[in-house]
Amino acid sequence: MFKKVCIIGCGLIGSSIARAIKKNKLAGKVVSSNRTKETNKKIIKLNIVDEASSDVKKEVRDSDLIIIATPLSSYRNIILKIKNSLKNGAILTDVGSVKKKAIYVIEKNIPKNVSWISSHPIAGTEESGPESGFSQLFKNKWCILTPGKHSEIKEVKLLEKFWKKIGSKVDIMNAKQHDYILSITSHLPHLIAYNIVNTTLQINKKKYNIVKYSAGGLRDFTRIAASNPIMWRDIFIQNKENTSKMIDKFIKNLKDLKKIINSKNEKKLQTIFTKTKKIRKEIIKAGQDINKPDFGRK
Amino acid sequence: MFKKVCIIGCGLIGSSIARAIKKNKLAGKVVSSNRTKETNKKIIKLNIVDEASSDVKKEVRDSDLIIIATPLSSYRNIILKIKNSLKNGAILTDVGSVKKKAIYVIEKNIPKNVSWISSHPIAGTEESGPESGFSQLFKNKWCILTPGKHSEIKEVKLLEKFWKKIGSKVDIMNAKQHDYILSITSHLPHLIAYNIVNTTLQINKKKYNIVKYSAGGLRDFTRIAASNPIMWRDIFIQNKENTSKMIDKFIKNLKDLKKIINSKNEKKLQTIFTKTKKIRKEIIKAGQDINKPDFGRK
Repeated sequence: MFKKVCIIGCGLIGSSIARAIKKNKLAGKVVSSNRTKETNKKIIKLNIVDEASSDVKKEVRDSDLIIIATPLSSYRNIILKIKNSLKNGAILTDVGSVKKKAIYVIEKNIPKNVSWISSHPIAGTEESGPESGFSQLFKNKWCILTPGKHSEIKEVKLLEKFWKKIGSKVDIMNAKQHDYILSITSHLPHLIAYNIVNTTLQINKKKYNIVKYSAGGLRDFTRIAASNPIMWRDIFIQNKENTSKMIDKFIKNLKDLKKIINSKNEKKLQTIFTKTKKIRKEIIKAGQDINKPDFGRK
Repeated sequence: MFKKVCIIGCGLIGSSIARAIKKNKLAGKVVSSNRTKETNKKIIKLNIVDEASSDVKKEVRDSDLIIIATPLSSYRNIILKIKNSLKNGAILTDVGSVKKKAIYVIEKNIPKNVSWISSHPIAGTEESGPESGFSQLFKNKWCILTPGKHSEIKEVKLLEKFWKKIGSKVDIMNAKQHDYILSITSHLPHLIAYNIVNTTLQINKKKYNIVKYSAGGLRDFTRIAASNPIMWRDIFIQNKENTSKMIDKFIKNLKDLKKIINSKNEKKLQTIFTKTKKIRKEIIKAGQDINKPDFGRK
């Protein structure tokens, strides 16, 4: 499919893409550039990529597809470094969870002979680093493409085909719409999980047995709140307008719930809790989870 | 262990206890009382209990152990109905998630020749009803006992042995402590899950593809928010003082997080998100979850 693919940043997502490329034989050569020597050594040793170094200019050279898989805050530095080393006709993409700002910084700097199409594979685990990646990570997961101003249909189709070959289902969306939808389906849930675990930590200073009894609900939030801190720091800051709006809506509703509880309004409470069951059924129907209880893993 | 055990309310928890009793041969006879004919018929047909009817007075008669496994709001009615039919020397327990109010209503009404010891098995799934129960539900899960004012050590030991025989680990705690710890480890997380799903429903009215992209975090909250509405309605109302306090702490912290995000304070955000990873490690160390990523189930 491609002669040479370069993955900038071989963490959980980057290394999973590299593995999936190799497994499905989608490139003649897969190379990678990472800041640290350790990572570059490790991914060669683990046979995740064919070549790796911290010289990003060298690695992107002659690549037909370049995938930025680093935290959002590094995009500016990366595009400034690689812009003059990109191959004529190459496709540049990323895997970032926020689009508007990412697209702006890249479109401002990209040469005209390179096609910029942003990607967002909605896949991941709470783990980080190249050891935690696996080739099946994208299987049956959605990947949202956000073409740049100057991307051509032919190239969008090619990138779409690439994501499908590694297992994804593909949708196309503009940056504004993407950032709004993801702020409710992903960013707010993560922030809430971080916040509940943080609140617990404050209480736990008094040495209650909170960890011991976490199976009653808290446990599931700690899994989400164990996600990559730098990645999530960047997501919230780069999508702060939407995140703020969602926080406000969430707090308003939580205050309403508190009032309903304190006034012992059984009927109203039951109505709300019955409604929330509905969306679960829709999620199962949409194949995003299974209709099987989760009672903790052992 | 017991000649006759009576389970009042054969839902997820009640039917799991009945199954575990049968599997481990802990009683000569297991009977149950449920409001509806359908449930009584179903649990006999499924061979979960030996006898079942809606006549709760009849079912509790001659029982050595009586387990109330109905929503908290039904306790008053139940104790008033059964108080004069309880066997001399019987043990009465429950499986409720809030203790203080439950204990009050029962201790006020219980005859002196019956031992009241409250139980809380911290186990469950998002499913409800007798079909969803299974005998292994309590395996390696904590069960908290809260002895009543007049319970004797001998009887507490016997009930402890019973929970251990069906797989639980047992701790003893007073009602106040129980309700405080559970409000942070279980009640607040459930309320937050209900609230985020409720917030999503409001936004989804505008027909965004929220369900489709729920794998990015929201999905895991919808599972928790699909729990039994009546059971949770009662929990929040009966533990409203602690729940209110926790909501206030949670909102305060969320507002702080919002400020940190809007001021683009990268360092502070990263510090918080790094701290929350710590408690995850403690939970895994405590055997409450496993150190294996969860990337959605198929």
